[in-house]
Amino acid sequence: MSVSITADHVHAAARRLHGVAHRTPVATSRTLDGRVGAEVFVKCENLQRTGSFKFRGAYNAIARLGPGALRHGVVAFSSGNHAQAVALAAAMVGTRAVLVMPTDTPELKLLAAQDHGAEVVTFDRYTEDRFAITARLAAERHLTVIPPYDHPDVIAGAGSTAVELLDQVGELDALVLPLGGGGQLAGCATLVKALAPGIRVIGVESLAGNKNRRSLDAGTPVRIHVPRTIADGVTGEVTGELTFPIIRALADDVTSVDDVEILVAMGFLFDRMKLVAEPTGALGVAALLAGKVPLAGRRIGVVISGGNVGVDRFCELLGRPRAARVPL
Amino acid sequence: MSVSITADHVHAAARRLHGVAHRTPVATSRTLDGRVGAEVFVKCENLQRTGSFKFRGAYNAIARLGPGALRHGVVAFSSGNHAQAVALAAAMVGTRAVLVMPTDTPELKLLAAQDHGAEVVTFDRYTEDRFAITARLAAERHLTVIPPYDHPDVIAGAGSTAVELLDQVGELDALVLPLGGGGQLAGCATLVKALAPGIRVIGVESLAGNKNRRSLDAGTPVRIHVPRTIADGVTGEVTGELTFPIIRALADDVTSVDDVEILVAMGFLFDRMKLVAEPTGALGVAALLAGKVPLAGRRIGVVISGGNVGVDRFCELLGRPRAARVPL
Repeated sequence: MSVSITADHVHAAARRLHGVAHRTPVATSRTLDGRVGAEVFVKCENLQRTGSFKFRGAYNAIARLGPGALRHGVVAFSSGNHAQAVALAAAMVGTRAVLVMPTDTPELKLLAAQDHGAEVVTFDRYTEDRFAITARLAAERHLTVIPPYDHPDVIAGAGSTAVELLDQVGELDALVLPLGGGGQLAGCATLVKALAPGIRVIGVESLAGNKNRRSLDAGTPVRIHVPRTIADGVTGEVTGELTFPIIRALADDVTSVDDVEILVAMGFLFDRMKLVAEPTGALGVAALLAGKVPLAGRRIGVVISGGNVGVDRFCELLGRPRAARVPL
Repeated sequence: MSVSITADHVHAAARRLHGVAHRTPVATSRTLDGRVGAEVFVKCENLQRTGSFKFRGAYNAIARLGPGALRHGVVAFSSGNHAQAVALAAAMVGTRAVLVMPTDTPELKLLAAQDHGAEVVTFDRYTEDRFAITARLAAERHLTVIPPYDHPDVIAGAGSTAVELLDQVGELDALVLPLGGGGQLAGCATLVKALAPGIRVIGVESLAGNKNRRSLDAGTPVRIHVPRTIADGVTGEVTGELTFPIIRALADDVTSVDDVEILVAMGFLFDRMKLVAEPTGALGVAALLAGKVPLAGRRIGVVISGGNVGVDRFCELLGRPRAARVPL
């Protein structure tokens, strides 16, 4: 594909999101700095509306639609952060959102989407094809599809994270980001490399789902098996059509962490920084704590991309066996 | 006692803490607003240095010491948030901190204090008197005692939370604060009532430890039994000597929540706002969610005073029984 995304698109998205998305805080910790051996600035997109950076891209894409498209509405297939983001963004723009979700989506996620007034269409993930259902809905009801990352406006919106971070902390030597579909990495890299090409941009994948790393090594997109990882936000099998070429051109490195390293980071963020990160959201911090980003003494920005892990799941992952429970 | 604390003291503390304490973010949530039926601004002192607002008071008190006092150092008895606050503040000012802690203090808390270079003196809480030990250490080693709340500079420092919050969000109709020893409530009420007396100031106690409420009702300080509550930051048996008269004069209301209401608030803050609150830190939000603050449609500021609850304790309190555990 030949769609080009420029820093201007990202800046325009940042302006569009001003006063709409949260300007999320940047957290710092002497303990984190000590562990990493660098000065670390944690951009808290877990504190973004709907609990992840996905709101930025969804809103930017929906807000740019024309009146005709807005009269009919939008459709997205996702049971995760993108779904919540599209639901809220559509409600804020004043259009209808249809979300295509598997029948076995947790009740809590269905309700959260419906909270924002979205219509949920369920499908059987074993017998039905979500792409076909989404395409049919789009055609029949004239809905605009809002993809989770492979869309210029979604990428530009996600890149606004970097605009804000640089504005908040000034110069950086590196920017470290969780990497799945690659929307945020592509958007942020586009901005950073235009504005301050000296900043190293580093993506962090789940080791089990390192499709970008393997595709970079192979020189061409590689399809991987559905990864078995706690990082449920990055379980895709292929790299992005739009995002991968940008990542190949602009990212300085793509590294990975395993599930144990993710859990260490989630525990550290909770205990030491009082922040809730979902497994995928903790990928960047996990890489720093595991020493995968060798930038001693430098100024490093790292994004927590999301915090949507419920209490129950969090404690399943990180709580001690119940036998050790103490009475209130 | 006749020590008077004025809004000027609080403003001076805010200036002293500028660039030293974190300017903690204010979080908002449409879901929280919907549940409470008001516009709520959550001041995140759980994201303060050392994980609680206590850093403000400790630093303000230590930074005001003269060169003679700083040469000898400071002493505090606490195994909780005040201890961490004094340890870090002393390190930042460049003086020595001695912390008097029970022998059964959790290892993690001992290590955290020592991380900041503090000296820990342990005592047997069943046979020894912490006041006597602290006084003896102070006398023998010329250390200045930094009390957890009953000190003008500690109160003024804690009040700087309100200076920041008003600067961040503008006008408010009410300010809701966790209440234990009363340092933060006294400091914030002093500031608020001088600056904008129309703002209602409301303290929230643990129901089992409602010594301020009972003392207000009795018209004189009342001693209560050691409260059995998960809110381990507010287990004192008596009201503050300095703080209680200020609270009596300036607070508009003192209400309370029980442990279940605290747990609901901790779970809500985690799931919906991605914030870690310790039980005591969640008192204010718990009162809002439980409908104890009848201010429908108004603009309400509420402080999360601290986030020092470890993963293990959090999951003991809020995790589901281990039988429900799902595999990674």
